[in-house]
Amino acid sequence: MGEHVQTRNPEGRPADTVLKPLVAVTERVGLAPLSSRLASIRAWLSDDLAHLERAIRDGADAAELGEFEVEEHLAVQTARYLLGRPGKRIRPLCVMLGARMGGREMDREVKDLAVACELIHAATLLHDDVIDEGTERRGVPAARVVYGNSASVLAGDHLLLYALKLVESVGYRRLLSNVLDTIADMVTAEAIQLEQRGRFEPNRSTYLQVIQGKTAGLFRFALAAGGTLGGLPSDQVAELGQVGNALGLAFQLMDDVLDVEGNTSSLGKDLLVDLREGKLTWPFILACERDPNFITLLQQYVQDSETDENLSAAVIIDRLKSTGAIADTRKFAEAQGTEARQLLAGLPVGATRTAIEAVIDSAIRRKK
Amino acid sequence: MGEHVQTRNPEGRPADTVLKPLVAVTERVGLAPLSSRLASIRAWLSDDLAHLERAIRDGADAAELGEFEVEEHLAVQTARYLLGRPGKRIRPLCVMLGARMGGREMDREVKDLAVACELIHAATLLHDDVIDEGTERRGVPAARVVYGNSASVLAGDHLLLYALKLVESVGYRRLLSNVLDTIADMVTAEAIQLEQRGRFEPNRSTYLQVIQGKTAGLFRFALAAGGTLGGLPSDQVAELGQVGNALGLAFQLMDDVLDVEGNTSSLGKDLLVDLREGKLTWPFILACERDPNFITLLQQYVQDSETDENLSAAVIIDRLKSTGAIADTRKFAEAQGTEARQLLAGLPVGATRTAIEAVIDSAIRRKK
Repeated sequence: MGEHVQTRNPEGRPADTVLKPLVAVTERVGLAPLSSRLASIRAWLSDDLAHLERAIRDGADAAELGEFEVEEHLAVQTARYLLGRPGKRIRPLCVMLGARMGGREMDREVKDLAVACELIHAATLLHDDVIDEGTERRGVPAARVVYGNSASVLAGDHLLLYALKLVESVGYRRLLSNVLDTIADMVTAEAIQLEQRGRFEPNRSTYLQVIQGKTAGLFRFALAAGGTLGGLPSDQVAELGQVGNALGLAFQLMDDVLDVEGNTSSLGKDLLVDLREGKLTWPFILACERDPNFITLLQQYVQDSETDENLSAAVIIDRLKSTGAIADTRKFAEAQGTEARQLLAGLPVGATRTAIEAVIDSAIRRKK
Repeated sequence: MGEHVQTRNPEGRPADTVLKPLVAVTERVGLAPLSSRLASIRAWLSDDLAHLERAIRDGADAAELGEFEVEEHLAVQTARYLLGRPGKRIRPLCVMLGARMGGREMDREVKDLAVACELIHAATLLHDDVIDEGTERRGVPAARVVYGNSASVLAGDHLLLYALKLVESVGYRRLLSNVLDTIADMVTAEAIQLEQRGRFEPNRSTYLQVIQGKTAGLFRFALAAGGTLGGLPSDQVAELGQVGNALGLAFQLMDDVLDVEGNTSSLGKDLLVDLREGKLTWPFILACERDPNFITLLQQYVQDSETDENLSAAVIIDRLKSTGAIADTRKFAEAQGTEARQLLAGLPVGATRTAIEAVIDSAIRRKK
């Protein structure tokens, strides 16, 4: 217990940064049953999440990875800036729940793998913001705006290597091989997205390929790797991986919905960010199929929105809504959530399975 | 033999791209004995080098690393652009020679490890050019100029992951752990360099720390990892690593000399590139110690060289030369070469040791 007390962040209650936002959101929108389920997961995993939060900060600070012992070089400062903003920590939560399903509590290996998943995610955010010229992240200026593109590239490299070192230290050779494949897919997906950027060519299969690589793959890895550490039989590990995959797709589709209808203040970012970066997400792909002239308006918006007062985000969103594309994207996300829950049915009944179900529900019902 | 024929590059004689430039250089400057020694290494390793060159190109093309099979996405095109320009391939040569010292010929594992070292080097070049805003590389516009910063970041990520996958596939767990440490040191060194950039604070120990991390570490890994694959006893592997380390330091110091006195056309780049990027290399550190007012002139040059006709590169280089700093940097490189050769003395006599000696000599005597 002493160890857990030590790992608490002196600034407050680190566990709260993880699930509290989800609980608050579900309370606000009147989803009391889900809210109380999430609150109980939060209580249940409280010490583990505190432990995790501390370890993520340690990961950002780890400068003496190899031969050097360097205090706070620029890449470390940049990484810490991003990691200091509380994210949803949903990927490490998946690792912890996967391990718990096999009856394994949070120990050093589970924690290392959970931290690795969060750091891989953070590394890709740092690189993606450079690639997409993003200006905001988690409600504050993006790391590249504060520390520069160069520091962000290095901070991403730094976190990626630290994460791989953690996975390597866990010692399951297949996990390392899987995580390298997963990250390689993330890079490929980002490259395809970059290539498509600004082309205004709505394409379902390209979109699905991109979100599979950039989001679903790491969710799949996180749950399956947790299950592996938990000692689950290989068929159950594979099933957990499929659950993670569907959860990841649902999560990304909801991200795309929130970018076209989210509440600006709770989302911590402007709307239509993807569109302004020249990316057509699922709602726009559906809308363009139904309203073929829409694509021309989208191109005009991206080119002229700053000078043409008649081309506001509201104009775009209204027309998007009128096609039913937002509602149908939400349904698509829900269908992925349903699939994830169905896949869970083959896995052991218990508190952990209920917790994973609550994570699936919250991914779909979140407002940020 | 059929396999070797297949691996030849249809465009010409790939082996020639590796050592031919070194041979040509040594002939030109009248180092006939060294030239003939390099020519004989070239003949000796010809098939292996052809094999290697083909595998490096395959590495650039490998898009279907994980789940996807994608033709030539942007990151692949960008990586191929850099790898298509012949480099010196000195790191993979170190792997091959390390393995040969243990009596192991070029087989799949040796080749994979050799390719991995070249791809790690290439990945860092792609990221470094983004970080340093470099405009030229290997005599042509840098990849980031042709394909953009975003594609270069992703191409670096792509090559890094492919390289790690290769090391992982070789299956020696310690090698993977070592290579992760080595790359982490490269990232740390680059971060320290970035932090120092434009500060004009000449500092010997920072400089040595940076070149240790960014260059010497990968040379050390390459030779030692080759020795490991070759089955050498661990004390000899460690010695080979030290040889690689000294060779890497010599190599980097000569890079710094060439940036202040190289022949622009043979070097394929302008002079004083490091200085204009705000980096003080060893010659400048020595010169500033001897001529304390020099630092002010250097700052003026970096700020005003484009508008002030009196501040040409020639002015800077003349003053640098007058302090004896260039000659002393060359001597420092030679001392590292001497140390490398002395360390070799404890290793088995034979054609491989002679070849490594020739590589050390050529690193110091090269003109590009």
